[in-house]
Amino acid sequence: MDQRIHDHAEVLVDWSARIERGDDVVVAVAEDAHDLAVAVAEKLGERGANVVTTYMSSEVSRAYLQAHDGDFDADPAHELALYENADSVLFLGGGRNTAATADVPGKKQQAASKATTGIREARMETDWVSTVHPTRSLAQQAGMAYEEYQEFVYNAVLRDWEELAEQMAEMKDILDAGSEVRIVKEDTDLTMKIDDRVAVNSAASVAYDSHNLPSGEVFTAPYATEGTVFFDVPMTLSGKRVRNVHLTFEDGEVVDFSAESGEDALADILDTDEGARRLGELGIGMNRGIDRFTDSILFDEKMGDTVHLAVGRAYGSNFPEGHEDEANESAVHVDMITDMSDESRMEVDGDVVQRNGTFRWEDGFEG
Amino acid sequence: MDQRIHDHAEVLVDWSARIERGDDVVVAVAEDAHDLAVAVAEKLGERGANVVTTYMSSEVSRAYLQAHDGDFDADPAHELALYENADSVLFLGGGRNTAATADVPGKKQQAASKATTGIREARMETDWVSTVHPTRSLAQQAGMAYEEYQEFVYNAVLRDWEELAEQMAEMKDILDAGSEVRIVKEDTDLTMKIDDRVAVNSAASVAYDSHNLPSGEVFTAPYATEGTVFFDVPMTLSGKRVRNVHLTFEDGEVVDFSAESGEDALADILDTDEGARRLGELGIGMNRGIDRFTDSILFDEKMGDTVHLAVGRAYGSNFPEGHEDEANESAVHVDMITDMSDESRMEVDGDVVQRNGTFRWEDGFEG
Repeated sequence: MDQRIHDHAEVLVDWSARIERGDDVVVAVAEDAHDLAVAVAEKLGERGANVVTTYMSSEVSRAYLQAHDGDFDADPAHELALYENADSVLFLGGGRNTAATADVPGKKQQAASKATTGIREARMETDWVSTVHPTRSLAQQAGMAYEEYQEFVYNAVLRDWEELAEQMAEMKDILDAGSEVRIVKEDTDLTMKIDDRVAVNSAASVAYDSHNLPSGEVFTAPYATEGTVFFDVPMTLSGKRVRNVHLTFEDGEVVDFSAESGEDALADILDTDEGARRLGELGIGMNRGIDRFTDSILFDEKMGDTVHLAVGRAYGSNFPEGHEDEANESAVHVDMITDMSDESRMEVDGDVVQRNGTFRWEDGFEG
Repeated sequence: MDQRIHDHAEVLVDWSARIERGDDVVVAVAEDAHDLAVAVAEKLGERGANVVTTYMSSEVSRAYLQAHDGDFDADPAHELALYENADSVLFLGGGRNTAATADVPGKKQQAASKATTGIREARMETDWVSTVHPTRSLAQQAGMAYEEYQEFVYNAVLRDWEELAEQMAEMKDILDAGSEVRIVKEDTDLTMKIDDRVAVNSAASVAYDSHNLPSGEVFTAPYATEGTVFFDVPMTLSGKRVRNVHLTFEDGEVVDFSAESGEDALADILDTDEGARRLGELGIGMNRGIDRFTDSILFDEKMGDTVHLAVGRAYGSNFPEGHEDEANESAVHVDMITDMSDESRMEVDGDVVQRNGTFRWEDGFEG
């Protein structure tokens, strides 16, 4: 087996999930993530953790959802009990077809999602980490050759995470001290309040309240959003390609939207529930190891010189202790990305922090 | 998808597991059982059941066990909770290599098995059913071409189960009325007590206390076993080929054993615990749809004109109500098969019931 798969497993188990002896771990294995599952199982065995492996198959989900009448039971007891008793959940993405659920009606997907809110909450209370094993399907989605894509993934994952965490601390300090963020670029002039919020230095480890591998972003939970924003980075939502989204906000809520393609999928998401029209996240991508867009949110949102906004659920980690329940609630959390590398700027309380892809503390910054 | 896969899923969900709306079902999916998992998920969606899919990978298990120091936690809480809260567990066998765990020391496998006794008991309290999806690995083990093996599996699975259940009722009546079974053939003269036991008409449905698909056997829980027995049907135990086993019993316990090959694997099993040296099952294969040995216990033990004996755990279903706790206890249940088609006879209380592969109620029977 490729040594990089073993290295990936080690970063995941030790740096990201901080697995210790006796931990009860769920490993969710996508259809083509078998090799990573084997490497992860070896590490978990070494650490003396206890493992349940689940099969995370989009084709199995599609068959189930298509056949179901749509009246889903709320939080089935066996699945809820599994996650309520788990210490960690490791999601090993890597399917065979990113469009595997494209023909499942969005309303049915959202109904299934809503019915399992308690299960999702139980999972989020564990030390969960999401990663992906490079598959041909993901290479195709990224428009890359298979070996080229493997190189891309391992460049993003196998980093010096401690060093990156120090760089991101700069941005966290600025956001923690600030009250309002403004983003200005093509078709975009958006302001968001961020006072009384705690920015998270997302360094790909549960020790940093960071649950993605790779990571490399600083994120907070904005509110009182006003203005317009243009997302020029392509994405796939509910198995459908969505391009060139425009959103208009008033009083913190989406009041108008459009998409050049995939507008139906976007509409389904915004109609999920009340919280789906408010922002749950503002994230600033700072992982310079990710050097191109690949139509995968796990990577795209971490890329340096991008900003992403998520509609829907906010993370409790962005709120001061005791105020976690003020986080925006929703059954969805959908990220959309805008490129900040050119003709753009981000301001905090009127001071430019990033212009044309260069941060204030970097060489070449022009305030 | 092959229509036979959909038919297999329907027999499994409706005839075998009797799944109803709202049932909490665990579907355990082997490495290459994906297509059957998709078909089963569709049926479960139609029925309105709730599904958790687990990944039953021998390669993942091997990696975990090899790396672990062998001091296993007893019944990890998350796995136990999953099965304690499940109504049904459907095991979809069908791996890529029947020898995938061949290099894991038997003692470590047995230690892991012993540590999860409570989980296994919780699973056995559900309406569980075991079946297999025909894979190239299983075809190879059976010494058959892939398409030939598919035909073999579906011939065994897609039967008129109600009709077969009626034929097997004859044998159940004889065993329920009897006190002692004797088996005589080459190197074999074995007697077992069966009074105060209840024979199970194993018609591949939980409604018959039968948990294998295919099935087609009548089984009971013998005791006070005396004599010698020769198992001439080949088998694979713990990933190792085992051939021509001889066992000698005194006072119900194995006091001597040998095997032409795989004797180590046999020794590991018999040394698991005290119960591993006593019989947990006597089964009489009556599925005439299974027409050859394939080195898979699920099929071989159901074949007409065979008898199998299992060392280890007995099933509570073979005991009168309130006496289930008298069943032999063990962390293992390992079946071994002997061919009864030639130069052999089975007696119940001194009366010949089967001679040279023909039952008393069949044409050509010679008492």
